Amino acid sequence: MTSAEKVSLIHGAGGEMMQSLIGSVFAGIRNNNAGGIGLEALDDGAAIPFGDKYIVLTTDNHVIKPVFFPGGDIGRLSISGTVNDLAMMGAKPIALTNGVVIPEGFPIDDLKTIVRSVDEALAEVGAAIVTGDTKVLPKEALDSIIINTSGIGITDRPIRDSGLNPGNKIIVTGTIGDHGISLIAHREGFKFGSELKSDCAPIWKTIEAALKVGGITAMKDPTRGGVANVLNEMAKKSHVSIHVQEDLLPVRRDVRAAADMLGIDPLEVANEGKAVIGVEAGMADVVLAAIRKTKYGKDAVIIGEAREGSGVIMHTKIGGQRFIEPPLGDPVPRVC
Amino acid sequence: MTSAEKVSLIHGAGGEMMQSLIGSVFAGIRNNNAGGIGLEALDDGAAIPFGDKYIVLTTDNHVIKPVFFPGGDIGRLSISGTVNDLAMMGAKPIALTNGVVIPEGFPIDDLKTIVRSVDEALAEVGAAIVTGDTKVLPKEALDSIIINTSGIGITDRPIRDSGLNPGNKIIVTGTIGDHGISLIAHREGFKFGSELKSDCAPIWKTIEAALKVGGITAMKDPTRGGVANVLNEMAKKSHVSIHVQEDLLPVRRDVRAAADMLGIDPLEVANEGKAVIGVEAGMADVVLAAIRKTKYGKDAVIIGEAREGSGVIMHTKIGGQRFIEPPLGDPVPRVC
Ligand SMILES: Nc1ncnc2c1ncn2[C@@H]1O[C@H](COP(=O)(O)OP(=O)(O)OP(=O)(O)O)[C@@H](O)[C@H]1O
Ligand SMILES: Nc1ncnc2c1ncn2[C@@H]1O[C@H](COP(=O)(O)OP(=O)(O)OP(=O)(O)O)[C@@H](O)[C@H]1O
Ligand SMILES: [Mg+2]
Ligand SMILES: [Mg+2]
Ligand SMILES: [Mg+2]
Ligand SMILES: [Mg+2]
Ligand SMILES: [Mg+2]
Ligand SMILES: [Mg+2]
Repeated sequence: MTSAEKVSLIHGAGGEMMQSLIGSVFAGIRNNNAGGIGLEALDDGAAIPFGDKYIVLTTDNHVIKPVFFPGGDIGRLSISGTVNDLAMMGAKPIALTNGVVIPEGFPIDDLKTIVRSVDEALAEVGAAIVTGDTKVLPKEALDSIIINTSGIGITDRPIRDSGLNPGNKIIVTGTIGDHGISLIAHREGFKFGSELKSDCAPIWKTIEAALKVGGITAMKDPTRGGVANVLNEMAKKSHVSIHVQEDLLPVRRDVRAAADMLGIDPLEVANEGKAVIGVEAGMADVVLAAIRKTKYGKDAVIIGEAREGSGVIMHTKIGGQRFIEPPLGDPVPRVC
Repeated sequence: MTSAEKVSLIHGAGGEMMQSLIGSVFAGIRNNNAGGIGLEALDDGAAIPFGDKYIVLTTDNHVIKPVFFPGGDIGRLSISGTVNDLAMMGAKPIALTNGVVIPEGFPIDDLKTIVRSVDEALAEVGAAIVTGDTKVLPKEALDSIIINTSGIGITDRPIRDSGLNPGNKIIVTGTIGDHGISLIAHREGFKFGSELKSDCAPIWKTIEAALKVGGITAMKDPTRGGVANVLNEMAKKSHVSIHVQEDLLPVRRDVRAAADMLGIDPLEVANEGKAVIGVEAGMADVVLAAIRKTKYGKDAVIIGEAREGSGVIMHTKIGGQRFIEPPLGDPVPRVC
């Protein structure tokens, strides 16, 4: 990037432009590893060896607008986001932080509602908020509450986003596009049916069930930039191609309808309660069955497989093939 | 708090009003402990037992304005703040997170400068940034960059802010009020001499030296709300009174001059590279000597002692006594 360049909205939108900003600025941090998997891996979190286990550490800022949305609120979102990044590294979530920046004038009752959602999401996975921080900014300085949730988890063996091998099956743990499409529809004031709501959920129990079966080679949660972005990252980092069957992609009918009307690809928007999982072929059916038995895994399917080569290829319903490109950025702003 | 109440600036200013907001809202989180010391302790961080050690976890949002200030910048501040909270728990800082929220239009060169400061501060203590997150907000939504830094450290034995016993000596590791007073003077465009700059520093090495000697019973860093706030918190939580000698309080001449002119008490403003330490009386001199040998401990002094009773009492230069009250909030806004 040249010296005159400034940060633009797309730099925070989870796609190729954000990767480029991170690559040219933050990945330049030299003190970037504390043993194990550090910043250089650009994975969902870091994993630091400790005794015979690993401590996984991850962080996310949540700037979603509006703060209360169909299917959740910023409290549930912040816990889910951090629990899920820990889970993607194979780690049981243990302890989380609650760093809030509040605009002056924010109703205290709304804070209490958010705290209740935080508690409900924590209870689902048995994690705790153990520390936090509170800053308040003048209303001219900040338009909406920001919550940073960092967290630690424990694992015997970290799972990476780069571990796919040719032949591995690719599972998604449920329907695609619900969070991003429902959020934009809500913001635009569209009504597409009552089913249209965020999938925002802490999915550790689903991931735990999959890990117990075994054969998992890679995981990543398709947040900003969606499944399109995550498949591309996993393929690139794993040095494989990923082949996906269009007719296997699980998209809710009303999500599809809203996406069509809005001109947005459900593959490119954020999900907040889903995982993309690579599994050894021989284990795929048992892992899938275990996932489907869990609350947030009922709609899980195998959508394709990893092969030699590079890129993400969609085999279309009419028998054609096309690349699924990584988006420059998520088309829906302030989505998480 | 009643249902119509709204968050105001003083709720984020580190004093009694913030404690009241935290107490009535965030301390209501029920899933608040992962073993060991959790949110209920309201200490500088949490400490979770792991094998025969403790993992300490802490977090801070940094919203300081301006981002570049005399003696540091938001990068150095964010690392120092988190390193110091880990250190206050007795923990060696290991791995930190870098969660940034950037306003659209922020110069990429400034980001790079901040990253350099981050790296320098990390190198001073041997810690690493291992993971991060990047969000961008429209310039109407946010006026200045926010950095959340969370972190983990390791200790055999967590030190609490509530461990003072009657008879313990109270050490401050250096001069008081430098950060807050220099920041407000800079913002107001005052020139009080070249020495007026933030004390912003990661002081793990100073704390490590003190811990190696032994006899430390309590620690807390006097950030928002200053030494006045921290002494009151430590006294209250430890069920002791603290007696301080006014003529022993180390305040730089130019800090004193600026504070007088601004009508601000240096005891009530944030420090960003200092600790208040309780030590068993018999160890106080050796601990002090060890601290003074370190880079950020040269001006350390014993300022008083803990006794039976309650409250913080200043023994004035002219032989009188008065309470040092906890401030409602730090008089300098957006100080960290
Ligand atoms: N400001 C930053 N400093 C250091 N590393 C960063 C920063 N922003 C992002 N990263 C790193 O870049 C990678 C991608 O970050 P990203 O936030 O997209 O991951 P994620 O949290 O899994 O996704 P999402 O934020 O959409 O939930 C991660 O490894 C993250 O640690
Ligand atoms: N939003 C929050 N949610 C949960 N706990 C919080 C929140 N804000 C603060 N706390 C807790 O309240 C206590 C006081 O927080 P505070 O931020 O003042 O501590 P600190 O980080 O040591 O000081 P500073 O932020 O000035 O550096 C800490 O134990 C902290 O974990
Ligand atoms: Mg992720
Ligand atoms: Mg994430
Ligand atoms: Mg804090
Ligand atoms: Mg502190
Ligand atoms: Mg702090
Ligand atoms: Mg992230």
